[in-house]
Amino acid sequence: MTASARGWRVSYHRGAEYEIRKCAELFNPSNESLLSVGRRRRSRRFVVVDENFHRLHSGAIRRYFADNEVDVRIVSVPAGEPNKSVEAYVSLLDALDQFPIDRRDEPIIAIGGGVITDLTGFVAGTYRRGVPHIRVPTTLMGYVDASVGIKTGVNLRGHKNRVGAFTPPARVLLDRSFLATLPRRHILNGVCEVFKLAVISDLALFEKLEAHGPDCIAAHFQDEPGLWILDRSIQRMLDELQLNLFEDELARKMDFGHTFSYGLETCADSQCLHGEAVLIDVLVSSTLAQSRGLLKRSELDRIVRLAFALDIIPPLHSLDPPALWESLLERTRHRNGWQRVPLPHGIGKCTFVNDVQQDEVRTSCVELMALSRV
Amino acid sequence: MTASARGWRVSYHRGAEYEIRKCAELFNPSNESLLSVGRRRRSRRFVVVDENFHRLHSGAIRRYFADNEVDVRIVSVPAGEPNKSVEAYVSLLDALDQFPIDRRDEPIIAIGGGVITDLTGFVAGTYRRGVPHIRVPTTLMGYVDASVGIKTGVNLRGHKNRVGAFTPPARVLLDRSFLATLPRRHILNGVCEVFKLAVISDLALFEKLEAHGPDCIAAHFQDEPGLWILDRSIQRMLDELQLNLFEDELARKMDFGHTFSYGLETCADSQCLHGEAVLIDVLVSSTLAQSRGLLKRSELDRIVRLAFALDIIPPLHSLDPPALWESLLERTRHRNGWQRVPLPHGIGKCTFVNDVQQDEVRTSCVELMALSRV
Repeated sequence: MTASARGWRVSYHRGAEYEIRKCAELFNPSNESLLSVGRRRRSRRFVVVDENFHRLHSGAIRRYFADNEVDVRIVSVPAGEPNKSVEAYVSLLDALDQFPIDRRDEPIIAIGGGVITDLTGFVAGTYRRGVPHIRVPTTLMGYVDASVGIKTGVNLRGHKNRVGAFTPPARVLLDRSFLATLPRRHILNGVCEVFKLAVISDLALFEKLEAHGPDCIAAHFQDEPGLWILDRSIQRMLDELQLNLFEDELARKMDFGHTFSYGLETCADSQCLHGEAVLIDVLVSSTLAQSRGLLKRSELDRIVRLAFALDIIPPLHSLDPPALWESLLERTRHRNGWQRVPLPHGIGKCTFVNDVQQDEVRTSCVELMALSRV
Repeated sequence: MTASARGWRVSYHRGAEYEIRKCAELFNPSNESLLSVGRRRRSRRFVVVDENFHRLHSGAIRRYFADNEVDVRIVSVPAGEPNKSVEAYVSLLDALDQFPIDRRDEPIIAIGGGVITDLTGFVAGTYRRGVPHIRVPTTLMGYVDASVGIKTGVNLRGHKNRVGAFTPPARVLLDRSFLATLPRRHILNGVCEVFKLAVISDLALFEKLEAHGPDCIAAHFQDEPGLWILDRSIQRMLDELQLNLFEDELARKMDFGHTFSYGLETCADSQCLHGEAVLIDVLVSSTLAQSRGLLKRSELDRIVRLAFALDIIPPLHSLDPPALWESLLERTRHRNGWQRVPLPHGIGKCTFVNDVQQDEVRTSCVELMALSRV
């Protein structure tokens, strides 16, 4: 801090780290992972669990804490975008405040998909100006995407993640076995993010998806290639996030898939999941990239072919070019006045453009609808 | 980031700085201070103003932005603890979301006392996971305390600052002339924090208050000693905050005055202001410190005498020892299981204790009530 006649300048530096740990049998009472952060003896844990997951595992979770003599309050929260709301945030804060925890030693535990970990992470990041939290993703989307970074948040009147914080978790615990019982649609939802990652940043991952993707999906990623794909996806995601965790740089490769159909899943009556909205964007962006000469025709065909093979192509007949354009305008505000649209420049490579025209978006939609009927 | 067979470790470092700038004639259209952060041309500003201040200055504020050709949305918010609520937070988020600003270049401006800057700071800290904000304190409490640090937040069901964030402002603009029209009770409210600062950390400031305090109060700090006291208070506050901005260390001198009557002002039907609650705590803590031999009898008398001279002694007949004890228990959770009570060890010096007993609190209250009747 420096002082002068004019006033003062306050400066600060801050660093920290967190661990993403793979583990198995998370609810086996002898597995210490869930209690590996904070105080164990005479302590309490506030646990937020996805309603569906809770239905299957409530007994095991309760037994885990009972056997470890930890006083637990379990709150079951319905998943789904409409529940990732400011109202759910306030209601969770109220529940937490009625189960007082120490500020540093009794981390909140979030068990669920992206909706649950984003919502709970935001509660943890703001209760008493921040208490630690642990994330346990139970969906593929959570496993490869939502849980590994530091973004938390909720939707505001259908505007996706409009309110939130950068809240590093104390720890992320990955138990791949949870994916085994996931409904197929939710497996595919996560595959869309893996697909996005491959197209924009990793040709080897793309090729692995071509070779093993359908089998991995059938095996719910419990097989060897599935493990490789999961590890690789997290590794690539972290490669991108690491140097830009707080989004000081607004041109972000990982925003690929999040420009033209941003928040499609939060519209009232939307039947869409987040990954499905991302996939629409990936296809529109790739078509647009091809028309600009950034992708060869054969590369675009290869991308569409893989999407078909993975069975992740959503219904495209209702693509709405004006809505896609509106989405770009909103993202431009989020990217501080510049479009900064990530486009694939060859499969696995990225470039950014700032001059997308409304006409181009419309043409890309028409072309994509033709392509997807092939 | 490091990877192993077990998982990944993600680490990060982050630094920044902000300026606290003294200025005059803030709303003179040729004064660039209010537009010194962010884009000036073809830009927008979302401005949150204390209702009382707005009544006096709405014309000047509007003219300022009009003359500078900045598109402005002014939201007037009532001050007072009951308005520092989660509901007010959500309502302000909604208003902001209807006046879209760019994420980095169009800072939110908060003009008001601690309630307004804490509330608006929290909105800014969480809208789009953080947009920049500027603070313009208009009360003495805001000037020497609320606006200079990085804490933002709102009350939850009467629990003071239970939800919030550490949100460094982009800039703090101090215009001392705003204090000239403040009601006397709000001047005294801020004086309580200055008094606290003096007792726990600054004998010279204490002596200056003894010599000039009553005159400064009468002059609403528009005089020379008033300027000295304001500058000194901010300097001392920053000395303390600088190395512990994010409260990594939970034993904090600045928590003096915030242990036994924590959040008294947020109780339903409370007639208390924040500074008044702090003052009660300062007096209880000092009495307790004297009974432990940390303060001499003469020092305690000197503290009480100055409080009388400054006319800041609140009604003490209703001191409620069980409520003070409950407050300590709650603060102990906030301080992660240890009391960490700051007590004066001689005037201007601080020590921390962890073994305050309920009996001691009761005795101190009785003794204080006797003292204050002298």
